[in-house]
Amino acid sequence: MAMKSFVKVHPDSHFPLQNLPYDVFKPRQGGEARPAVAIGDYVLDLSAIASAGLFSGPILKNSDCFLQPSLNKFLGMGRPAWKEARTTIQKLLSSNEPALRDNAILRKKSLLATDKVNMLLPAMIGDYTDFFSSMHHAKNCGTIFRGPEDPIPPNWFHLPIAYHGRASSIVISGTEIIRPRGQGHPTLNSPPYFGPSLKLDFELEMAAVVGPGNELGKPVGVNEAADHIFGLVLMNDWSARDIQAWEYVPLGPFLGKSFGTTISPWIVTLDALEPFACEAPKQEPRPLPYLDEKISKNYDISLEVQIKPTGQEYSSIVTRSNFKHLYWTLTQQLAHHTINGCNLRPGDLLGTGTISGPDPESLGCFLELTWNGQKPLSLNGSTRKFLEDGDEVIFTGCCKGNGYKVGFGTCSGKVVPAPL
Amino acid sequence: MAMKSFVKVHPDSHFPLQNLPYDVFKPRQGGEARPAVAIGDYVLDLSAIASAGLFSGPILKNSDCFLQPSLNKFLGMGRPAWKEARTTIQKLLSSNEPALRDNAILRKKSLLATDKVNMLLPAMIGDYTDFFSSMHHAKNCGTIFRGPEDPIPPNWFHLPIAYHGRASSIVISGTEIIRPRGQGHPTLNSPPYFGPSLKLDFELEMAAVVGPGNELGKPVGVNEAADHIFGLVLMNDWSARDIQAWEYVPLGPFLGKSFGTTISPWIVTLDALEPFACEAPKQEPRPLPYLDEKISKNYDISLEVQIKPTGQEYSSIVTRSNFKHLYWTLTQQLAHHTINGCNLRPGDLLGTGTISGPDPESLGCFLELTWNGQKPLSLNGSTRKFLEDGDEVIFTGCCKGNGYKVGFGTCSGKVVPAPL
Repeated sequence: MAMKSFVKVHPDSHFPLQNLPYDVFKPRQGGEARPAVAIGDYVLDLSAIASAGLFSGPILKNSDCFLQPSLNKFLGMGRPAWKEARTTIQKLLSSNEPALRDNAILRKKSLLATDKVNMLLPAMIGDYTDFFSSMHHAKNCGTIFRGPEDPIPPNWFHLPIAYHGRASSIVISGTEIIRPRGQGHPTLNSPPYFGPSLKLDFELEMAAVVGPGNELGKPVGVNEAADHIFGLVLMNDWSARDIQAWEYVPLGPFLGKSFGTTISPWIVTLDALEPFACEAPKQEPRPLPYLDEKISKNYDISLEVQIKPTGQEYSSIVTRSNFKHLYWTLTQQLAHHTINGCNLRPGDLLGTGTISGPDPESLGCFLELTWNGQKPLSLNGSTRKFLEDGDEVIFTGCCKGNGYKVGFGTCSGKVVPAPL
Repeated sequence: MAMKSFVKVHPDSHFPLQNLPYDVFKPRQGGEARPAVAIGDYVLDLSAIASAGLFSGPILKNSDCFLQPSLNKFLGMGRPAWKEARTTIQKLLSSNEPALRDNAILRKKSLLATDKVNMLLPAMIGDYTDFFSSMHHAKNCGTIFRGPEDPIPPNWFHLPIAYHGRASSIVISGTEIIRPRGQGHPTLNSPPYFGPSLKLDFELEMAAVVGPGNELGKPVGVNEAADHIFGLVLMNDWSARDIQAWEYVPLGPFLGKSFGTTISPWIVTLDALEPFACEAPKQEPRPLPYLDEKISKNYDISLEVQIKPTGQEYSSIVTRSNFKHLYWTLTQQLAHHTINGCNLRPGDLLGTGTISGPDPESLGCFLELTWNGQKPLSLNGSTRKFLEDGDEVIFTGCCKGNGYKVGFGTCSGKVVPAPL
C-alpha cells in the first residue's frame, strides 16, 4: 500500500510523500532563506522542524545544516545524513504519525503554502559543468554544424565530453531571460553580424547536484560516484546558436551560453528516483576501466517541453523526451570529471547536455526540431524557427509510480527583448 | 624624486612604495586570514591598520572591508575606495609620516616579515575565464594542431576568444601540481591511451581580477571596463596536451586544464601599473563598435619562466616574454565577456591566455618552445620535451621604473607524480 501523508496530496502532484525534494525558500511576507522539502502544495520548513528538535537521529540531532541559507552544508554531509533526513521527514509527514499532524502550532509554523513563498537557488554553485551525453543530440548537432559524414567525433564514444559552463548566470525557474546580443557569422565578405541573437534556443537538460566533493588530485571511482550525487534538477541551457556557431572554434561554447541557465528549484534525490532506475544503453566500444561500472543505471524520467507565446492562452508541447535516452550515465560523468584530479565541491552542477531521443518528436532543442531553422515548427497557429520575444519555455519532468508520481515541478523562463 | 618608505626596500624588490599589491595571509604562528599589502620583505596587515582607525577617508572610515578573510568586499567597492586606500597606505608607509613609523606597538602588530606568513588565495573566485589573446600563441597552436594553412581561425581577429575554466582547482603559488591521468589520442586501431599525462605543460599567462561586477543582462561598455578591473596576477594555466588534444573537439578544453591553475598571491593594481602603460598593437580589421575603445592600452611587464629540475641547484630560463605582446586588451576582453549580458562578480578571474611573443625565445609554453615535443629544449645539461616529475616551474614578472621596480613576485609550482 502506498505511503500516505496527513497533508493532502493530489494523485497528479509531483510531490507526494515518496518524493520529498529539497530547496531553499523565503516567505513572501519576509524572512531569511532556509531549506525546505515539498509536500503536495506545501513546503515543509526544515529550519522550523530542526528548531523544534524533531531531527533526533544521530547525525542530524546536533547539526545546524538546516539553519543555513543554502543546502551546501547538508549536501556535503553525504548519504548517511540524507538517508536519516529522509526517514525522519517521511515519518513526520506520514498520516499515522502524530508529532507534527497533531501539533497545530508547529504545523502552522512549518507548513507554508507554496504560493506564499519564493523559491531560491538551492545551493551556492561553485562550478557548473555541462556534458554532451545524448548520442542523438551529438549526431544531430554534428550533422547540422559539420555535415553528415562522421557527425559524431571519434572521441565521443570513448569519453563523456563536457565543457565548463558559467556559474554566475545560473538562475532559478521563473526568472526572465534577456535575449543576448553578440556576433554572428559573417556572410561572404561582409563583417560579422552584430545585434540581438537571431537564433535563440532552449536546451532540454537535467543536472546532477554534487554532494560531498573530492580533494584535488584524488579521483572518485565510477562505482563510488553515486555517493557524490545528491539528486537531480531540470535545466534549460539557453543557447544563442548564431553566437555559438561563430565563436566555438577552437575553445568551445562561451557567450552563446553564458547569458543565462535556468534550473528548477526542487532537487529530487537519487533515493526518491531509485524505484525508477533502469538499465542504461549498452556501450560499444566498452569503456576504459575507469568508466566501466558494475551497474550502469539511468532513470525513467518523462520530460516535456511546452512553449507559450505571449498573448496566447495555451502552451504547445514541442517535445517529449526521457532521461533514459542518455548514453553516458551520471556516475560515468562524475568519475570522468575527476579522473585528472579535478576537485568537485558540494553544490556543483553537472548538466547532462541536451536530452534528445531517437524520434523526431523527442528532440531536445529547436536547433534539432527545426533543423537549424530550415523546417519551422507549428505552435498552435504561429510558427517558430527559434524563440521569439515573449515566448515562455516550460519544462516538466516526472516518473510515474503505481498511483503516484515523483516529479520535478517546472523549469520555466520567458524571453524578453535585448537591451537597445 | 622617488617616494621612499621608512620600511627598508631593496632597489631590486618587486614591492616598493610605488607598488603596494594586495593579498590575504595567515600568520604561520596562527590566526585568521586577513588582507595585506606587500612592502619590501614585509606584509602590512590591513586589519590591524583598520582596527587602529588609520583608514580615515570618507569611504573606508566605517567599512569592515579589511576585516574580511578575502578581498571580495573591497574589490566590489570600486575605484574610489581603491584610490582612497592607496593614498592612505602610501602616506602611512612613507618615510616622512610619523603615524606608523613612530608607533612601535602598532608597527610590531601590523608589519610582519613575509617569511613568517602564509599567503592565501586573495579572493573567492566565483568564475574563471581564460582568453586566447596572443596572436603568436594562436598562430603557433593552430599550426601545431591543425596545420599551417590558415592556422588562426577566422573569428580570432573579430573577437577575443575565450572559454570557461574551472574555478575549484585554482591554487596559490607554491602548491604542488599532481600530474593528471587521462585519455590521450588512440594510435591507428588501438584504444585510446590511458595513464599519467605524457605531455604536461605550463602556460605563461596573467589574469585580471574583477572589481565591481555587473548585473545579468547589463553589458559593460569597453570604455568603462577599466573601472571593473582591480589588478593583475601571474598565472600558470597548467595543461596536459595529450588529454587536451583528444578531448577538445567540439566543446573545448576540459580535463586537459582543470587539474590545477596556479596564481601568484599579490594582486598588482592597475593604479600601480599605470606608469607602465603602453599602446596596444594596432587591430586590423577594426573591431566592431562594442570593442572599439578610445584608448587601447597594454602594460610593459617583462615576464620570465624558469624551470628547476629536481636535484639541480639552479633553475634555467626557458622563456622571456612581455604582457605588451597581447593583441586583445583587458578592457576588450571584459567588454566582450559581458556583451551578451553575462554577469561578472567581484573576484572573478579573467586569464589572458598564453602570452607568447614574436621571437622563438619568447614563446609561452613547451608546446610552442619544443614544437609539440619535436625539438627538445636543453635545460642546463638535461633536455625537455614536456615537464617531468620534480620539475619546478617559476614565473616572475615586473615593470622597470626609474630606480625602482613594480613586480608580481613569483608564481611557482612543482610537478609531483600521478597517483598509482
